[in-house]
This record gives sequence, structure tokens and C-alpha cells, in this order.
Amino acid sequence: MNEKNTEDTFYVDRKDFSGWYNEIIDRAGIVDRRYPVKGMPVFLGYGYFIHDRIMRFMEEIWNRTEHQKMLFPALIPENLFTLEAHHIKGFEGDVYWIEKAGFNELEERLLLRPTSEVPMYHMFSLWIRTHNDLPFKIYQTCAIYRYETKSTRPLIRAREVPWNEAHTAHDSFKDAERQIAEAWAGYDELFEKYLGITGIKFKRPEWDKFPGAVYTSAMDLLMPDGKVLQIVGCHNLGQNFSKVYGIVFEKPDGTKDYVWQTSYGVSTRLLASVISVHGDNRGLILPPEVAPVQVVIIPIIFKGKEEIVMNKCMEVKKMLSENGIRVKIDERTKTPGNKYYYWEMKGVPLRIDIGPKDVEKSHVVCVRRDNREKYFVKEDSILEFVKKILAEIFNNISKKYVESLNKHIHNVESIDSLKDTMKNGGFARVPFCSVGEDGLACNEKIKEMGYDVRGTLYGSDELPDNKKCIVCGKEASNYVYIAKSY
Amino acid sequence: MNEKNTEDTFYVDRKDFSGWYNEIIDRAGIVDRRYPVKGMPVFLGYGYFIHDRIMRFMEEIWNRTEHQKMLFPALIPENLFTLEAHHIKGFEGDVYWIEKAGFNELEERLLLRPTSEVPMYHMFSLWIRTHNDLPFKIYQTCAIYRYETKSTRPLIRAREVPWNEAHTAHDSFKDAERQIAEAWAGYDELFEKYLGITGIKFKRPEWDKFPGAVYTSAMDLLMPDGKVLQIVGCHNLGQNFSKVYGIVFEKPDGTKDYVWQTSYGVSTRLLASVISVHGDNRGLILPPEVAPVQVVIIPIIFKGKEEIVMNKCMEVKKMLSENGIRVKIDERTKTPGNKYYYWEMKGVPLRIDIGPKDVEKSHVVCVRRDNREKYFVKEDSILEFVKKILAEIFNNISKKYVESLNKHIHNVESIDSLKDTMKNGGFARVPFCSVGEDGLACNEKIKEMGYDVRGTLYGSDELPDNKKCIVCGKEASNYVYIAKSY
Repeated sequence: MNEKNTEDTFYVDRKDFSGWYNEIIDRAGIVDRRYPVKGMPVFLGYGYFIHDRIMRFMEEIWNRTEHQKMLFPALIPENLFTLEAHHIKGFEGDVYWIEKAGFNELEERLLLRPTSEVPMYHMFSLWIRTHNDLPFKIYQTCAIYRYETKSTRPLIRAREVPWNEAHTAHDSFKDAERQIAEAWAGYDELFEKYLGITGIKFKRPEWDKFPGAVYTSAMDLLMPDGKVLQIVGCHNLGQNFSKVYGIVFEKPDGTKDYVWQTSYGVSTRLLASVISVHGDNRGLILPPEVAPVQVVIIPIIFKGKEEIVMNKCMEVKKMLSENGIRVKIDERTKTPGNKYYYWEMKGVPLRIDIGPKDVEKSHVVCVRRDNREKYFVKEDSILEFVKKILAEIFNNISKKYVESLNKHIHNVESIDSLKDTMKNGGFARVPFCSVGEDGLACNEKIKEMGYDVRGTLYGSDELPDNKKCIVCGKEASNYVYIAKSY
Repeated sequence: MNEKNTEDTFYVDRKDFSGWYNEIIDRAGIVDRRYPVKGMPVFLGYGYFIHDRIMRFMEEIWNRTEHQKMLFPALIPENLFTLEAHHIKGFEGDVYWIEKAGFNELEERLLLRPTSEVPMYHMFSLWIRTHNDLPFKIYQTCAIYRYETKSTRPLIRAREVPWNEAHTAHDSFKDAERQIAEAWAGYDELFEKYLGITGIKFKRPEWDKFPGAVYTSAMDLLMPDGKVLQIVGCHNLGQNFSKVYGIVFEKPDGTKDYVWQTSYGVSTRLLASVISVHGDNRGLILPPEVAPVQVVIIPIIFKGKEEIVMNKCMEVKKMLSENGIRVKIDERTKTPGNKYYYWEMKGVPLRIDIGPKDVEKSHVVCVRRDNREKYFVKEDSILEFVKKILAEIFNNISKKYVESLNKHIHNVESIDSLKDTMKNGGFARVPFCSVGEDGLACNEKIKEMGYDVRGTLYGSDELPDNKKCIVCGKEASNYVYIAKSY
């Protein structure tokens, strides 16, 4: 009922990725875009389950690494927001303003949080006193609001964005750097253990860093259309905010200093990635850990045999759900074929068909969603098989994605060969003059060609040896990665 | 560091309940009210853990009863909101308006949701087609925004309220009634299994029902100061909203009708209740299921014996946490006495003291928070003891509260004895002329005395036999319950 289209068949060629994405978002019941505020869809049951599970895995990781979960108000007073000059400049075009409430004009304008540095760091200044309070690590799972003027796209560019953001304070730049490494380890765990996605970590060029940051590291994921999507932002804020918001701590020697800070976050773009990366022309392929339904059982009914088939289906369902598997029987009055199409579209990792002959032979028929391989599985080994095959499916789709990512990184040494090498999308690794302000002019040229400079590899020094910038021909100081981006 | 006061001792006489409440909210790290928007505190780590756990237990119950979890935008277009006349009248004084975003004036004003009937039911009209779609049950965990003009109080009356709301649609009034019963069973389970609180369920008088409802049932909890607090609202909306928002379904016979609807919700008032009801002069007493720390271990250090004591503490901690207990060792450089005070204030259900003599004797000392009883527990039976005693603590605090509630229900048959009977607060059960519009005048008199008519008992017909209304003296049609309310 949450799907617009009541047909059970789905087949959209992923070569038209944008068409596929829009269609599957609607058909699989991810979000409903008909909500009458632009860029703010309703998260439907099926889609929200996946998002919610991603967020919970994220929260488990932050809890384990001793981040405290808090919740800050969504509303920020204007005078607090405008303190940090770069920050306000970066966001002022994007914020929703509240000037009236009930029948009153408010004394001070409020804005809906576009991100939470400001409200949080104001409070940090009240909470942090001495080095004993550091490191101080918190996170929240909430929504942010940005009045996007670019065209919106569900889960990728929206005006209300459910997300998870963490913010930390430290007694040294070095400890903030250690924290950034901890954050990346957390994200890597989330992606590798539960989502089967990954990407390339960059240090963004100066002109593309988070407003107010010393530097921004970020992960770009390769989408099936060859464009790249930033899925993590992880910022070393240095003392930029602590100096503005007055977050001071006393050192062991009694002197005082401003804290060093970091912030990092992920959003519904993870859901967008999981959908996009693993799907095929028949619809979604969901990683088992986040799939709302992990196993669907299809009763193959023949006249006179209804009861023995349904009993077997219920027996298998009961056994699997008692063992923690999310399992569902499709009892609708549709043909098995229609049900197959439907659940393939929904991305359920494993299907179990049970007909009268299977009951007789004490086996069931299992079909994997990822490669559509078929197995006859003895009744007494169903659980073992299901666990094994779900793990295999996850490994298979993860591996497939990593391989595709690696195939899409190209070395390019001249501007003339850029377009041609990049005809299937991906990243071009090129020598570049500068990722500082000096590189801005070359970046403009790259942008005119429809590309972005995504940055240098994060955490690794790839220094060009006697290479020339592919744009201006001056000596290259860095290898940068160029891509078309969302 | 999240507590304003760095002293470890806490002792506030609960006779000044309001003073106690304000003090413990600050000291235990529940919320921080210093956030610079009135009525919008920051939820701190300790307090938010409790709220979050309450919400998760709630969600588990709604998931099990096949409510789908969704998430709707926080912003509602004005023209959608103003369709249902009673509803808009009930909320228009309370809403935050958004008229500007970025540098633009919006074409249509948006408002922050004060509740979600409107956005949800607009979408219901797109989703619901036939009787096969019914019952349709969804919930969301989010925050609502109300520009309260009364004075705010943390967790009880705020301008941003994290909550859980469920909304359903049915093919008959009868099925909506069945749903309301299911909702109450869910709340009863939440309260009796995890929170150790309860209250009295009322059908609210006509003049106090939810704007747009056919009737409102609600639960009032008795607070320690004798005043009552509504902690659940559960509304039968009939076809009032479905007629306005056009939510039509086709019946099996092909005819069409509007759906019957219900909505129900709980908020941070549950956290307020848990804090208020179970605490004592020394601070919080948390129900073990929602306590951030269930067991705290205090090392009793003597010179030269540090290592054997700390090793034992860590061994016990490891064993308990491997068995799913939330346990913490307090390693701070403070006296054991100070630590006792601190964790008593924080409401940790069970304390374990371990000193060198205890290690020698292969036992530990356990102290319950609820009645401060002390036990010597052999090392090999700690886990069993902890599990048993946590269950006992929960039963004890639950029972204590129910007893206190029952002691505060008074039969009153004349207006003259009302004040006197109610001097310690609670509920007065009185004969009353009418809970319909005819009773409004008598209700006004009751309000002038500082009380509210909370309604008739929900789900039970207590019909007065030849009694007179305690206000006007006309024949009483109902027993109603009167109380001072928050």
C-alpha cells in the first residue's frame, strides 16, 4: 500500500541510473515524495527501517567508543549563530528562520539547525573546565534543515536530513588527530560490517572545507552512474570554534588554553548508497544486516494441499524467527511468479519456496537475491544454510562493489585525455599545482569541464615527482582526484 | 562535568517537591536548562539514556503489535494545517511559523509540527484505498514544538518535546475501539514491565478533549506533591479527520466510507514521572531496566592493597558486563563516602563495595539504593544475586508507588469537604452533573478552587445512584475525579 505502483514486476535498466533510482525509491516504499513541502519526503516503513538500523549500528559504535548520546534543541538563537564568521557565511543562505510563534513576534529570531556546531559549542563552554574533562565526546541522532536551492533528490539532497553527528573536544591538536582516526575506524566498521559499501577518503582542498574547519576529510562513494557522492564528512576544527565560543580548559600546570575540536557525521546518504550500490535491474539487493525482511517464504499452493504447505511454511518461519532471522510468509492471493518479482524488487536477500513436493521430500527451495542461485536444502539444515548464505550474500555484494570502485580509479596526466578516460565515470588521479588558494584558478577550469577536485588522498602522502599540473602546467605539488559529483 | 554542582552530597527534602525536582534535574545530569532558548533544554547523556531507553521499549511494543515505524517532516504547510477547524483552533496559539528561508520569503508559510495528525492524515488519504489496507497502524519517534505561554518546566511543559506518537485507521468505529484497547495494553506493559509507574485512566470531559477528537482517554499519574500529570493521551478521532482529509476506503461490498481513526502518544513526561515517583531525599532511584548504570563498583582502597582490590573490581565488572549488566567502576580520587553520595543521587540501583578484607573473605558488599539494605555476597553468586536483587528493587519501587496512588483516591460528596479531604493532594471522586457541555458551569467553579475535573474512569461505568452534583446540586450523571494538575 505504500508503493505507488501496484504491479509486481520491476525491471529498469540501470544504465539510466537516475530513472532507476527514482523508480525504486517509490516502488520499494523507501520515501514518499508527495508530501507537500519540497525536499521533505515522508520516510516510509520499509525505507525507514533500513535507515534506522544503519543509525543504530552507528550508535553502537559511538557508545562503545565512549561518545555520550545527547539531544540538542533544533532551534538556535540568531545571536549565537552569527558569532563564527566563516560558519555563518557558509550557512546563511540555507537556514529556515522563525520570527513568529503563536500570535507573537519573537524578540529574537530563531533558526532551525543546519548543523550543530553552534548550539553544542556554546554548551561545551559551560561544561568543560579542566583537562580531566577531556577528551569530551558526544553525538546525537536528529534531523538538520537546509534550504537547498539546488534541485533536491530523495536521501541525497533534501531540505530535512535525518542524520548522526558527533562532536569532540581535546587537550591538543594531536589528540584531535587521534580522534579523527577513531572516527574513521568507526565509519569503516559500519561500512565493512553492515553495509558492504566503502569509498575513497580525501582531504578536501582548502576551498571545499567545512565552514570554520582547519581541514575537512571526507569519503566519496562511487555511484553506479560514475558520479561520486560524499557520504562522510569528518572535520578537524582546530581552535577556530573554541576561540569564538570560549571553550577553555585548565592544563595540569595551571595554565589555560582553548580546546581542539573535531566534528563528523553521516546522513540518509548511507541509505541512498546502500540502495544504489547493491541494486540491479530487478530492484534492490539489501545487505542482510539492514534488510527489513531477510527471508521471505512463498507458499506454492496446489488444491487440496493448502494445509500441509501452509503448516510447513509456518513451521519454518517460526524456527527462523526464534533464531533471530527477520522472516515473512507472503500469503497474498497472487501467483508465485508475481511474488517473486515483488520480493526481488524489495531486495530481500533470500527467498524460500515451499510446495507440496518439497514437503514430501523434506526439503525447501532457496533462491539468493544477489546472483539468483537456487539450492535444495534439507529441512533439518535450513537454519545453518540461511545463516551461511546471508553471510555469503553480504560478502559477495561487498566484494563486487569494492572491485567496481577499484576499476574506476584512473591515472590521467593530461587535460586532453581527462574526458575520454572518464567517459565511464569514476575518479581521475592527476598531478595538480596546489590544493591551497593558489589552486583555485585551475579548479575553476576543472569545474568548467563539469568535474570537481575532490582532494588529496586522506592519510597518505602521494607526492608527485617532477610532474606538471594538468591544468596550468606549473610544477605539481599534489596528486588530486577529480570526479563528477552529486 | 555535566552537573552544575561539583559537591557529591545531595539531600533535599521532597516535601518541597518542586525544589527537589529542579535540583535533581540539574545535579543528576538529566537536562541542562542553560541553553539559550526558553523551554528548550539540552538532553544530557545521563538523562537522555533513560528517555531513549523508554522510547525503545515503547517502539518494541509497537513493532510487535505491527505498527510501522515512519518519519514525517517536522514542517507543515499552512494550508494543510488549517483544514480541520477544531484542530487549528486548538493549536494556532502554539505554533512556530517559518516565513523566510535563506534570503527568500517563502511562498507559503510553514509551521513546526505541534502534533502530527495533519501531515500524516494527508498522506493517509494517498495510501489507503480498500478495506485490505486496514487496520493501518504507524508510529514515529520525533519531537514536537509548542510555543507554551504557561511557565515551562523541564520534561513536563517544554517548547520542544521529544515523544512517540502512533496513528491508526480502521474500517469501523468498533475496530478503532479495539485499537484503543490495544494501545492501552501497550502502555500498561511499558509501565508495569519497565518503569514501575502507573496512573488512572480517564475519559476526559467534553471540554477537555483533544482538538478534533470524538473522545479522549488519558492517564493521570500522581506526583509526589499530590498534583497529577497527564502521561498518556489516547484519542478516538472517529471520522472527524478522515472527512476533512478525504481518507476513503472501499468496503468488500464496493461501497465507500471514511476511515475511523485513533491517535495516541507519550513524551518526556514518562522520564519526568520515573524521576519524580521513585526518588527520595537523597536523589534518584532508577528502575533497573532504564538505569544508565545498573551496578556501580566502589573500590575501597588501602595502601599496599590497591592492586588486589582493583583487580577484583575489574574481574567483577567484566563478569557482570559480559552478562548484560550495565556496570561501572568509580575510580575517581574521592573518598568512598563521597562516591556513595554521588551514586545514590544518580539513582544507581545497586552498589558493590570491594575492599581488601572482602577480597580475603571472597565476598563483596552490596547495598540496594531503594531501601539501603546491605548484603554480603559470596563471589561465586554475585551474578545470580545481582539479577535477583535488581528484579526485587523494581518490584519494590513499583509496589510502593501503586500503594501510594491507591491511598490518594478519596470519595467526596460535598464541596465543603473537598479542600480538606484534598489537603495532601490526590484524586477526589465526586458525583457530578455532566461531563458534556452542560457541566461547563460547574467545572468553572471547580477551576476557581484550583482544581480540574479530570474525567470519568475510562472503561468502567461508575454511575451514581441518586446522588447530587457536588457543585450545583442537580442530579449527578457521573462520578468524576477531581485533582490539581500540572
